[in-house]
Amino acid sequence: MKSTWQREIQVVNEALDKYLPPATTFPPEIHRAVRYSVFAGGKRLRPLLNLAAAAVFGVPQQHALPTACALEMIHTYSLIHDDLPALDNDDFRRGRPANHKVFGEAVAILAGDALLTLAFEIIATKAPEFFPAQTVVSLQQEVSKAAGMAGMIGGQVVDIISEGKPLKAETLEYIHRHKTGALFTCCVRCGAIMGQATAEELNTLTSFAQKIGLAFQIVDDILDIVGKEEQLGKKTGSDITKQKMTYPALYGVQKAQIKADALLAEAFAAVEQFGDRAVKLKQLAHLLVKRQK
Amino acid sequence: MKSTWQREIQVVNEALDKYLPPATTFPPEIHRAVRYSVFAGGKRLRPLLNLAAAAVFGVPQQHALPTACALEMIHTYSLIHDDLPALDNDDFRRGRPANHKVFGEAVAILAGDALLTLAFEIIATKAPEFFPAQTVVSLQQEVSKAAGMAGMIGGQVVDIISEGKPLKAETLEYIHRHKTGALFTCCVRCGAIMGQATAEELNTLTSFAQKIGLAFQIVDDILDIVGKEEQLGKKTGSDITKQKMTYPALYGVQKAQIKADALLAEAFAAVEQFGDRAVKLKQLAHLLVKRQK
Repeated sequence: MKSTWQREIQVVNEALDKYLPPATTFPPEIHRAVRYSVFAGGKRLRPLLNLAAAAVFGVPQQHALPTACALEMIHTYSLIHDDLPALDNDDFRRGRPANHKVFGEAVAILAGDALLTLAFEIIATKAPEFFPAQTVVSLQQEVSKAAGMAGMIGGQVVDIISEGKPLKAETLEYIHRHKTGALFTCCVRCGAIMGQATAEELNTLTSFAQKIGLAFQIVDDILDIVGKEEQLGKKTGSDITKQKMTYPALYGVQKAQIKADALLAEAFAAVEQFGDRAVKLKQLAHLLVKRQK
Repeated sequence: MKSTWQREIQVVNEALDKYLPPATTFPPEIHRAVRYSVFAGGKRLRPLLNLAAAAVFGVPQQHALPTACALEMIHTYSLIHDDLPALDNDDFRRGRPANHKVFGEAVAILAGDALLTLAFEIIATKAPEFFPAQTVVSLQQEVSKAAGMAGMIGGQVVDIISEGKPLKAETLEYIHRHKTGALFTCCVRCGAIMGQATAEELNTLTSFAQKIGLAFQIVDDILDIVGKEEQLGKKTGSDITKQKMTYPALYGVQKAQIKADALLAEAFAAVEQFGDRAVKLKQLAHLLVKRQK
């Protein structure tokens, strides 16, 4: 992945560095904690997805960057809070100690809060340089809904309260669609909104994103089972230990892989209408679903 | 306070009830937790402050309500997270068990996250019914900055990391100005923004709000020392037990009261220019600083 997308990831990282206050800003404890997790080696899939969707409509990269970075901040906040002892209780993330292991639980909770808040600030203060106020308001609507109780947080809640219980397939699908899917879809939709997409185009891309998001989650769960510990940088099989239900756990790795591939094919078919304009988006989707780590 | 402001509090409560999804919404665990803390008997000081500031400019109550409620949601989220074992570790809030004591730490953390997110959603989705998009963007800028690392979260961080240490007066002032003051000031500024205030009017009201916010915090700390346990509904003197530095602890109750009264007088003088239009704002400020509980 690095060879193809390295430059774009670099641009996202530079923008994140610009949008986050310097680590020396008072009080430095929170800025160090926030930067620790934002620059912990994330693959920037959500910003890349947002930029690729915006590119379908010819939105310049620079214009999409505030929103792309805001989406990465929301993703990072969700990881920090997810890793807390009261939630998933993960001591490691991407091979490094989790935020709360380094900065303590109190600062980790506040660092998550800070990133969520900063995401909305960046959209509110930086996006207006490139888009009319009405578009900025639409972006805020999208992001707040996707990150909220009807989206990502809803998925996290169901995930948490389902731990250790036998899980129905529909509950598993709810968790996937909300915990990961909602923000994935939001990344694509925000790209379309910045591009002044029509309602029909927005629907098409929403469908594309939902399929990719679900496929991505399935692949994530497969990798969690078959992946090697050193590749993923976290204890493999941890979801199984905690009796979390996943697609491969429910249907087996092979059937889960077939499902992921089918979703990818459906997603490709959905964006056929955009022709060459969706090349980048399709390349990225392929990488997300075919990744080995 | 009830006799004068009861009707207005009722209006705020009804709006909050309307903006929060019903407790039966899936997944009900999070909606019950969110509603538990939002309807835990809060005095709605921040919404009232916002409505009173908006009233200076003739903004109808109905138009200001989405923002007023969003500010109360942010206040409530900060209380839920503050009470967590990793932060202030308070088992009680307003005489009732804290959110995490009823719903568990995981759901409490997510309920706080949900309220913060919903605050931005309500402004993004409801305020546009009454204000141009540019005004809505300005509101988002104000709220995100006030709630973030340069505002409320900054204050919380310094408060947490200062516990048990000898505190300089300037650090105490930083905590006050940020932890409570930033959101207080934001309430007033958002009222002015909705009223299309001039830059000068905004400055005047900012100064007013900063003084009232600081006075409010000092009175809060005085009440914590001298108040009766049953009046406040929480263990009095708890800040002292935890070696938190406060104004009255640093200067004594009497000098702290003189400081609060002086700030109130300065605040009144600042808004003299608005004449009768600021009557409500002044009445509210008087109540905030002269309250006995």
